[in-house]
Amino acid sequence: MLSVKNLIDTYSLTADDITQILDTAASFEAINNRPGIKKVPALRGRTIVNLFLEPSTRTKSSFELAEKRLSADSLSMGGSTSSVVKGESLADTIQTIDAMNVDMFVCRARLAGTPQKITENTDAVVINAGDGKHQHPTQAMLDLYTIRKHFGHLDGLKVAIVGDLAHSRVCGSLAPALKTMGAEVTLVGPPTFQVDDPDWFGCPQTSSLDEVIEDMDVVYMLRVQLERMEGAAIPSKREYNRLYGLDMRRVNHMKENAIICHPGPMNRGMEINADVADCARSRILNQVNAGVLTRMAEMYLLLGGESNGISA
Amino acid sequence: MLSVKNLIDTYSLTADDITQILDTAASFEAINNRPGIKKVPALRGRTIVNLFLEPSTRTKSSFELAEKRLSADSLSMGGSTSSVVKGESLADTIQTIDAMNVDMFVCRARLAGTPQKITENTDAVVINAGDGKHQHPTQAMLDLYTIRKHFGHLDGLKVAIVGDLAHSRVCGSLAPALKTMGAEVTLVGPPTFQVDDPDWFGCPQTSSLDEVIEDMDVVYMLRVQLERMEGAAIPSKREYNRLYGLDMRRVNHMKENAIICHPGPMNRGMEINADVADCARSRILNQVNAGVLTRMAEMYLLLGGESNGISA
Amino acid sequence: MLSVKNLIDTYSLTADDITQILDTAASFEAINNRPGIKKVPALRGRTIVNLFLEPSTRTKSSFELAEKRLSADSLSMGGSTSSVVKGESLADTIQTIDAMNVDMFVCRARLAGTPQKITENTDAVVINAGDGKHQHPTQAMLDLYTIRKHFGHLDGLKVAIVGDLAHSRVCGSLAPALKTMGAEVTLVGPPTFQVDDPDWFGCPQTSSLDEVIEDMDVVYMLRVQLERMEGAAIPSKREYNRLYGLDMRRVNHMKENAIICHPGPMNRGMEINADVADCARSRILNQVNAGVLTRMAEMYLLLGGESNGISA
Repeated sequence: MLSVKNLIDTYSLTADDITQILDTAASFEAINNRPGIKKVPALRGRTIVNLFLEPSTRTKSSFELAEKRLSADSLSMGGSTSSVVKGESLADTIQTIDAMNVDMFVCRARLAGTPQKITENTDAVVINAGDGKHQHPTQAMLDLYTIRKHFGHLDGLKVAIVGDLAHSRVCGSLAPALKTMGAEVTLVGPPTFQVDDPDWFGCPQTSSLDEVIEDMDVVYMLRVQLERMEGAAIPSKREYNRLYGLDMRRVNHMKENAIICHPGPMNRGMEINADVADCARSRILNQVNAGVLTRMAEMYLLLGGESNGISA
Repeated sequence: MLSVKNLIDTYSLTADDITQILDTAASFEAINNRPGIKKVPALRGRTIVNLFLEPSTRTKSSFELAEKRLSADSLSMGGSTSSVVKGESLADTIQTIDAMNVDMFVCRARLAGTPQKITENTDAVVINAGDGKHQHPTQAMLDLYTIRKHFGHLDGLKVAIVGDLAHSRVCGSLAPALKTMGAEVTLVGPPTFQVDDPDWFGCPQTSSLDEVIEDMDVVYMLRVQLERMEGAAIPSKREYNRLYGLDMRRVNHMKENAIICHPGPMNRGMEINADVADCARSRILNQVNAGVLTRMAEMYLLLGGESNGISA
Repeated sequence: MLSVKNLIDTYSLTADDITQILDTAASFEAINNRPGIKKVPALRGRTIVNLFLEPSTRTKSSFELAEKRLSADSLSMGGSTSSVVKGESLADTIQTIDAMNVDMFVCRARLAGTPQKITENTDAVVINAGDGKHQHPTQAMLDLYTIRKHFGHLDGLKVAIVGDLAHSRVCGSLAPALKTMGAEVTLVGPPTFQVDDPDWFGCPQTSSLDEVIEDMDVVYMLRVQLERMEGAAIPSKREYNRLYGLDMRRVNHMKENAIICHPGPMNRGMEINADVADCARSRILNQVNAGVLTRMAEMYLLLGGESNGISA
């Protein structure tokens, strides 16, 4: 049992919650990776609504596959046909879907706070699949799974999160979760991209990747939101790559066992160079794989499953 | 067994048909409302095509959930990707899908008569999920279910249907179905919104909600199609609300046990005030719940199930 | 076992491959045509991704139904929400989906070569559901199934393929497959629509339908891509119909047992007249039916099933 009813953010999760999620995900690995029948009847007959009010392909696919592998019945709304909230308030939309007796909402929204707002209009479980610049807790769980799988543990690891820190829901979820698990987090980004609070979750900030990279166990590159790079006093693409992009020269300074993560989709040649993305240190596709496992675990645990998982 | 092969309109249904649908829906209530596995294998391996040529979220979701809870295999077409009928006639489209061996079409269309047209091109069962200003029979069934559940019966009840009577497929289906079941129906709307036939299904018409409201067991508010309110000699929004909107002042004149219905989505503050929508008399979310149950019943009965339903 | 790992084109298929596909499809016929449960657990728990980068309704529906009837778990991407490849390369998209552990990609693409490109980025099986003007192998298999079902064999049959030969992926797949199975293929089309290679798969070309039609067992009418008819030195619609359209006058010259095929959707009155499309010789809806069967067979065999099929 998790200590929370919904998965809205990572700073509400205890170390025990996170450990339960990661351990349960690990118990799903054998199911997910086998060549034949990749599913269990764990959530058979449960109804899950994927409400994607902001377009998303990879997160939505990951949830949909996780739902199928748990044998849940799921319904996906939104996306291009976002007639969802048209003509009525979000509250009315959610109350309407809730009245059809659903067990869970998975919500991606452009507007921060939407998943929380949903919890106020349903008794069903709510999972935040990314809300504005706020939180993306299921991304953080798959990141932690990937990192823990490589190192065998999370406590004491040194992790640099690099990029547009202030506007990133990935950073907003990952940093507190890492801290909860005893890792040390260093935030690296241009001054205009740093977070306002100098003591945010106790994470030191720096604008020099080169100064810190050789101490890190994990270098986590954030996606640059190119659409946000257009205006303002921000570096050009080439300049960004020179100062904050991960290229082979920088990778060669990393510790022997250190790894590279990225939430995808990548801008190759921008925040990460093509050869780096495909190098042996890269755990980017492992993260994608972990996404299905950890989402299976979150849905399973929040709908009443036990953390000792399921036998394959 | 129903007396009809397809569900195109409500005036072709006998009282026995309607009773079978409502009774079968009731037998699904225990399945639909339980916390765990909300499905039965009743339509396992049957193929249902949801052809939504007009956008719809709540009706489509309701059908999709009903299909999943009956374990049917369903395919949804149309919506934004309405390349369905592109480049070929509706007849060719239906004959093509029919040739893939489907058991049922559920069709929503902007053009009245489309579901009937489909029946001419397939041997599969056809359910009308709303066609233009013509009919919306599955809405009427969920309305009747909701009303019968509250009062225990339908005969002798006094029901006011309020709003844009002449252009409403909801009214067009609900009024005849209520009459078939022995209820008395009063139509209430501005003169420009009244039906042309003064003896339409034997329903008296009036332009004064205040004169009739205190006699009614059910006040059924139609959604105002705002897009249709723009031009012409029709009342302004504020004026409409003042004359035909359901506010607390009017609700306080209703009989003690009387209830309020609305097909959704609501225009709060227009045809129904926000506090009225959420008051104890409101059965609006009960209607949504009944939608899944009655659609399960209709699909089950039309595909050959027995009206004694299914044990949960 | 097929001799190929993926189904990208028809000229890589041996006669034995094609026979296995057609025989397995035949073994699915009883399942697909029965009134009740139209599914088998053959691919239960397998994950199939339908990546439709070019809009398609009938091919996509056919695959989706085939997947449901094999009990596979499938995920459809692309179409109007083609945010799939947005912001990242096709290689990154495929590697990402592949990392979620999928068993098969079914890909429709505007760009010729896309399915082949996918095979370079995944170990999953890839089926080409139509790529640009290149190949459409699953269409050819359903065509062969339909023709073999009518005549009992393929070898020695005389088949005319009529229309825009040079730009047709249907022709590009059908002609080699027919040749592999021992049929004789004659290509018929206006000079501007003929293929450049005068000995293409050993198929003679002619611009006169009337000269060859009376010798043919099968007259296969290609869809005219109306959008391509606009410019250039190509015949007008009326002229095209007069010279290359299949009308009753021409049909009356066909051999007694000869049949008519068309991949759909039809332009009635253009390449095929309305009465011809609906006449007794027409096998157009049989082709649609065969589409589900042969796609079930292809997916089943490529994912490791045996060609002796499945008992209904």
